[in-house]
Amino acid sequence: MSAAPQTVHSQGSGSHSLEARLIRRLLSSLGDPPIEFLFKWTGERVAAPATAPVAQVQVADRGALLGLLADPQVRFGDSYSAGRIEVAGDLVELLSVLYRSAPRDGADGSLARRVAGWLHKPRRNTLSGSRVNIHRHYDLGNDFYALWLGQTMAYTCAYYPRLDADLDEAQVAKMDHVCRKLRLRAGASVVEAGCGWGSLALHMASRYGAKVRAFNISKQQIAFARSRAHELGLERSVEFIEDDYRNIAGEHDVFVSVGMLEHVGPENYAELGRVARRSLSSSGRGLIHSIGRNRPAPLHPWIERRIFPGAYPPSIGEMMQIFEPSDLSVLDVENIRLHYAVTLRHWLERYEESVDTVRAMFDESLVRMWRLYLAGSIAAFESGELQLFQVVFTTQENNDVPLTREYMYPR
Amino acid sequence: MSAAPQTVHSQGSGSHSLEARLIRRLLSSLGDPPIEFLFKWTGERVAAPATAPVAQVQVADRGALLGLLADPQVRFGDSYSAGRIEVAGDLVELLSVLYRSAPRDGADGSLARRVAGWLHKPRRNTLSGSRVNIHRHYDLGNDFYALWLGQTMAYTCAYYPRLDADLDEAQVAKMDHVCRKLRLRAGASVVEAGCGWGSLALHMASRYGAKVRAFNISKQQIAFARSRAHELGLERSVEFIEDDYRNIAGEHDVFVSVGMLEHVGPENYAELGRVARRSLSSSGRGLIHSIGRNRPAPLHPWIERRIFPGAYPPSIGEMMQIFEPSDLSVLDVENIRLHYAVTLRHWLERYEESVDTVRAMFDESLVRMWRLYLAGSIAAFESGELQLFQVVFTTQENNDVPLTREYMYPR
Repeated sequence: MSAAPQTVHSQGSGSHSLEARLIRRLLSSLGDPPIEFLFKWTGERVAAPATAPVAQVQVADRGALLGLLADPQVRFGDSYSAGRIEVAGDLVELLSVLYRSAPRDGADGSLARRVAGWLHKPRRNTLSGSRVNIHRHYDLGNDFYALWLGQTMAYTCAYYPRLDADLDEAQVAKMDHVCRKLRLRAGASVVEAGCGWGSLALHMASRYGAKVRAFNISKQQIAFARSRAHELGLERSVEFIEDDYRNIAGEHDVFVSVGMLEHVGPENYAELGRVARRSLSSSGRGLIHSIGRNRPAPLHPWIERRIFPGAYPPSIGEMMQIFEPSDLSVLDVENIRLHYAVTLRHWLERYEESVDTVRAMFDESLVRMWRLYLAGSIAAFESGELQLFQVVFTTQENNDVPLTREYMYPR
Repeated sequence: MSAAPQTVHSQGSGSHSLEARLIRRLLSSLGDPPIEFLFKWTGERVAAPATAPVAQVQVADRGALLGLLADPQVRFGDSYSAGRIEVAGDLVELLSVLYRSAPRDGADGSLARRVAGWLHKPRRNTLSGSRVNIHRHYDLGNDFYALWLGQTMAYTCAYYPRLDADLDEAQVAKMDHVCRKLRLRAGASVVEAGCGWGSLALHMASRYGAKVRAFNISKQQIAFARSRAHELGLERSVEFIEDDYRNIAGEHDVFVSVGMLEHVGPENYAELGRVARRSLSSSGRGLIHSIGRNRPAPLHPWIERRIFPGAYPPSIGEMMQIFEPSDLSVLDVENIRLHYAVTLRHWLERYEESVDTVRAMFDESLVRMWRLYLAGSIAAFESGELQLFQVVFTTQENNDVPLTREYMYPR
């Protein structure tokens, strides 16, 4: 028998280690994605049968391997962040084949998916819970996000009128797409739920002449947004309010929320709908922009634990629990998931250019964790695991609605 | 005391009849719509307080009045059809104020609405049940529908690129809007579920060069569609199949269904989704066009009993039970309810022009029944009681999707 490393391709036990056989079973349960494992401490290689691997997963030690076998979704991310798992080849491609190979279930979801749902309740988004959850992600520091989000600091899916648009152009195009969908006019009053670093609110005021009240519970984002409003001389048009969307009051022409719904939690959708309904005049228009799914499923558990505590991307059916109980009328739903894949590629490219700065600000572990998150998100949007929905709505009684959607596409 | 007829405006019993007081209570429970009742046998008039009535409901006899009090929704329609209730004034306006005045409920729906839901189970759409239900409505005779549907014989919401488009233009524009959304190309294979009199299938073949298999369980509609295909020399491109959508087989580039979902029943949505999913190639596109609602509620019971047995217009949330269990990806939802109000006004206008012919074909009762149905439908779409949704979908894995929806709006 040769002592040279060999790749385990069959289910047969033969001369392969127990670990190799267990990884082989794991691959099989994942739909046999075309990837190869390398155990660095023995040189042994394991792959799904009859496929040319797109990338190699290099496991540094037996402990990391056992972790992977016990809880693959969470421990892959944790060991990758810790440098105990390395990837030779294209990280995005590796994660894409994992998403694409995963067996699709029947009508009720696979047992595994349902078990994952039971075990994995996202952290609840009560008023205080939301503050903790939002703080963990968004208060990593404005300087960190400024490295890779581009000039607008918009941390949501951009909109590419052409594939060769650059990130900043596409973020501005997204804001204009949203404003057009809302038929924003000079003097309109807008309330924004979850305003990030304030780019949309400022854009609505400076380019459309709107009066905006913008809510956010992230201290650092609000501080940043206020100082931008000051620099731009827009303090009279835009008010940044450090408060929860549930405390929004007053009647407005427009209700808008871009990239907040992911943090709201389905248990609060009916309340969000009541807030939106009471915020709108009878001819008011609303827009909610959110990551979503084709069917209900929990967020990837590693992302929910390490990156976005409390987050949940809903299906359209789940999103309707915002609108239906309040008799809001949905006028338009657009799915722009492929735009998010492009946006994320632009973010990842800028992130990699700034990786030394990130390492200096934090450590190698955060560098790797964030790289995995961005790459995995590209894979999720490209494979259709995640979607991006923009929903336009109005009150049931509003008949002041354009006949066609041509107004969204000026030329 | 004067013997002259007087209008009861207050809740006080005074000198008013028991019937008047009961009608007053009925009006109050309906949100006090601005309408007046006239009891023809006494000359007594009853109206909601402090409103100028938009129309007068003239009740011919005490029996009709008691029926109205016992089951207002169904007996209004039945007595109107029988000529025992007449309306002085604009019938559409009368029905509109009834829809607009109705109290809106809280989050879970009013008790009345829920009771209506329990008591009123639509007739089930099993394979044989569907045949009976569809026969009752669509097999009234092609000649009847030809009087008022216009040249296309399309019996679904048209699409008005401009408000001054006429009915035939708007029906052709609807077909083109659907074909554009589906990115229909020459040589594409299409399966259509519920093809009516065949206009869309024939349009797809003649204008776009598609190969279409079109399903319908209405014998008369299929016979009509086949003879049109023969006249147009399109027998090689379009096959009209007298069969249920559940028996659709084979893989296609396009799945389309315009105005069938109303007859499918929510209990069959998951199966419709499986049919759509298995009909589509991995880059296939689908479109479902249906009457819907802002929130789940049963169809108006008179319409369901006398006009559309077994029909149910779903909310978007309910419609998602087609797509979500089959991992279909919703790309676009458009709500064009106001187009249906215009379409119905065009139908009603043509219907009134042909009313003598309708009377000769059937009787005065059918003339009045159909007038009430068309007028009530205008009111339902104008008041937002009903919606019209077009949903475009594809497979989860399909990335061959245009970046923007500009392609739907060529200029």
